[in-house]
Amino acid sequence: MKPRKVTVLGATGSIGESTLDLIGRTPERFEVVALTAGADADKLAELAIRHNARHATIADASKYSRLKDLLDGTDIEVSAGDDAVCQAAQMSSDWIMAAIVGAAGLKPTFSAATQGSCVALANKECLVSAGEVFLDAIKSAGATLLPVDSEHSAAFQAIDPSPASCIETITLTASGGPFREWTAEQLKDARPDQALIHPNWSMGQKITIDSATLMNKGLEIIEAFHLFPVQTDQLKILVHPQSIIHCLIQYCDGSVLSQLGSPDMRAPIAYSLAWPERMSAPVKRLDLAALGKLTFEEPDEKRFPSIRIAREAMNTGGTAPTVLNAANEIAVERFLAGQIGFMTIPKVVEATIEASISEIGIARASTLDEVLETDLAARRLAERFCGAYRIS
Amino acid sequence: MKPRKVTVLGATGSIGESTLDLIGRTPERFEVVALTAGADADKLAELAIRHNARHATIADASKYSRLKDLLDGTDIEVSAGDDAVCQAAQMSSDWIMAAIVGAAGLKPTFSAATQGSCVALANKECLVSAGEVFLDAIKSAGATLLPVDSEHSAAFQAIDPSPASCIETITLTASGGPFREWTAEQLKDARPDQALIHPNWSMGQKITIDSATLMNKGLEIIEAFHLFPVQTDQLKILVHPQSIIHCLIQYCDGSVLSQLGSPDMRAPIAYSLAWPERMSAPVKRLDLAALGKLTFEEPDEKRFPSIRIAREAMNTGGTAPTVLNAANEIAVERFLAGQIGFMTIPKVVEATIEASISEIGIARASTLDEVLETDLAARRLAERFCGAYRIS
Repeated sequence: MKPRKVTVLGATGSIGESTLDLIGRTPERFEVVALTAGADADKLAELAIRHNARHATIADASKYSRLKDLLDGTDIEVSAGDDAVCQAAQMSSDWIMAAIVGAAGLKPTFSAATQGSCVALANKECLVSAGEVFLDAIKSAGATLLPVDSEHSAAFQAIDPSPASCIETITLTASGGPFREWTAEQLKDARPDQALIHPNWSMGQKITIDSATLMNKGLEIIEAFHLFPVQTDQLKILVHPQSIIHCLIQYCDGSVLSQLGSPDMRAPIAYSLAWPERMSAPVKRLDLAALGKLTFEEPDEKRFPSIRIAREAMNTGGTAPTVLNAANEIAVERFLAGQIGFMTIPKVVEATIEASISEIGIARASTLDEVLETDLAARRLAERFCGAYRIS
Repeated sequence: MKPRKVTVLGATGSIGESTLDLIGRTPERFEVVALTAGADADKLAELAIRHNARHATIADASKYSRLKDLLDGTDIEVSAGDDAVCQAAQMSSDWIMAAIVGAAGLKPTFSAATQGSCVALANKECLVSAGEVFLDAIKSAGATLLPVDSEHSAAFQAIDPSPASCIETITLTASGGPFREWTAEQLKDARPDQALIHPNWSMGQKITIDSATLMNKGLEIIEAFHLFPVQTDQLKILVHPQSIIHCLIQYCDGSVLSQLGSPDMRAPIAYSLAWPERMSAPVKRLDLAALGKLTFEEPDEKRFPSIRIAREAMNTGGTAPTVLNAANEIAVERFLAGQIGFMTIPKVVEATIEASISEIGIARASTLDEVLETDLAARRLAERFCGAYRIS
């Protein structure tokens, strides 16, 4: 079998590293075309050498010479800057991992889509902020979109070939985050260090805070709406603290199909890497007898209003989800910087969406540039609200 | 769409009735060719009239005139006797439910297989007693086998299109039966009325006792071995008292696919009826938040030796599973009649298998007749052991 040509956008992040870990276990099956990173030249150089990449690209142009020095004497081609990242995404490849976190991942992931091969999507923003535009890009390029989020990969795996009309509901599970059992009163004083302790998953900071507010699940509901043939009211959230069941597909005959597993991102990454087959992955095997029990509860939208806010943005449509995502990024940044309180995060998001509807408009975007304009305007608005709600 | 022509073998039993209940909810989608029953002429007549069947066949020839009288004045053709049941199974049909319990179902189900259409298999014995021979019959007729047992239907639904080599294990869940928490001492005195109270499923007497001994799971492991592309050591049993998760497929990448649902046989029956699509079924929808938790434990093969005995019979191969099944049927009958104790059931089965190996031989059968001969000889041996272990 010919090795699969792969590119990893966001190689030095948590998903990128896991992807390369899997690739490195059967290097004969893969040929690494390009690796990109934001600013960590040292780690990028190390990964590029270890995986014998043809290209290494760093978004932060000021790190160019550092990267160039580190890769001196190798055959690895070096480039730098945001445009270079997009060029790396467009290099001929069979499979591209799109794992650049946040709105920064939008342009490179769109570039990857134009390529027409498999796009393993770990960046949430393409679907949340730019859903319709991104799906149009995927479709017109004839690309295949493989979700990498554990819940969406789970749904992708569990949906069977029966007609879409047979699906009654899709339920994404949520761990409930570190504050699942906190009272509303306690939540007001929740600190960043407390929010960063995720009970099950080891992930980046931004997404860990999103897990604590449950905005993560709100964003995933929006993603699922774009990925799967269901309407918004068919998408449900279930709190399941052990994060073993990742998704549940309820069919019209009473059957439920589901994907389960130990909380380890290498499982959905491996699935996307080997799709439509499967490959071995060093993921701890599920042992339900050893676990003893799995528990479930309804999400509490009073303590965690982000779910409701995200659902409303999804129902409002247009660029409301773009605004939601932008405002949330800003609010999370400010919370991590100790400038606003934990419960102020959803407050900023909601206020920004309301203000956007009246001030900048939320009509459906038809290009990525329109999405980016809305994103930028929403960020400015969100900054304003963060200032207003700032902890003095 | 042309209505699907369906036949139900064992129409008056628990599975047969559930099947007809589903068919009766969208009668325009189905055309009932034939209904058969063992001895309950009144119920058969009622069902044949209600579902507008073309044929009604009763195995017990002495009930012929009763059935004939009840269906007098209708267009329904009446027949009686074991051969007539096989003839009914061979009538041209798109889909046949094989729901005759026990060894009595072997010949009619083989007749159904020769037809070449879809055989929805609720009879365990075809696979347990006559596995290889039955699969040969299905294959040479080009028929499609659809398992109806909840666990096997679950596996059938949850196995994805990736290569069979990607499956690491298939785990069938077991409720653990009414005696899950009984001590070995208590089990010795377990009475039929206690064994007949199944915690989750409403089923026939024989299968309910099999659930209490866990022989049911032993038989299902043998079925699964024939139905799915795995070796015996890849088949696992997990005790799960709530019977919500029915089967778990562990893949090589750490992912587990599963089918779940409320314990209601109409879900797997509906799946087989509509396959490869799905149809609406009035099955209570799964509400995990309302259930709160699912629990799991390893099966205790000391208190429930049937699992070990069945596994050994499967590994021995040849007609050892035929003997296992025959001996178990006899032992369960005698237990229900109050003639042997609960813990004597596995004792009789194990003794019969051991004696068969030395007395009648367990070479692989190549025809149904050879299977039936072994079955008969095993029954005689089992009777002998039941006599020896009889409660005085």
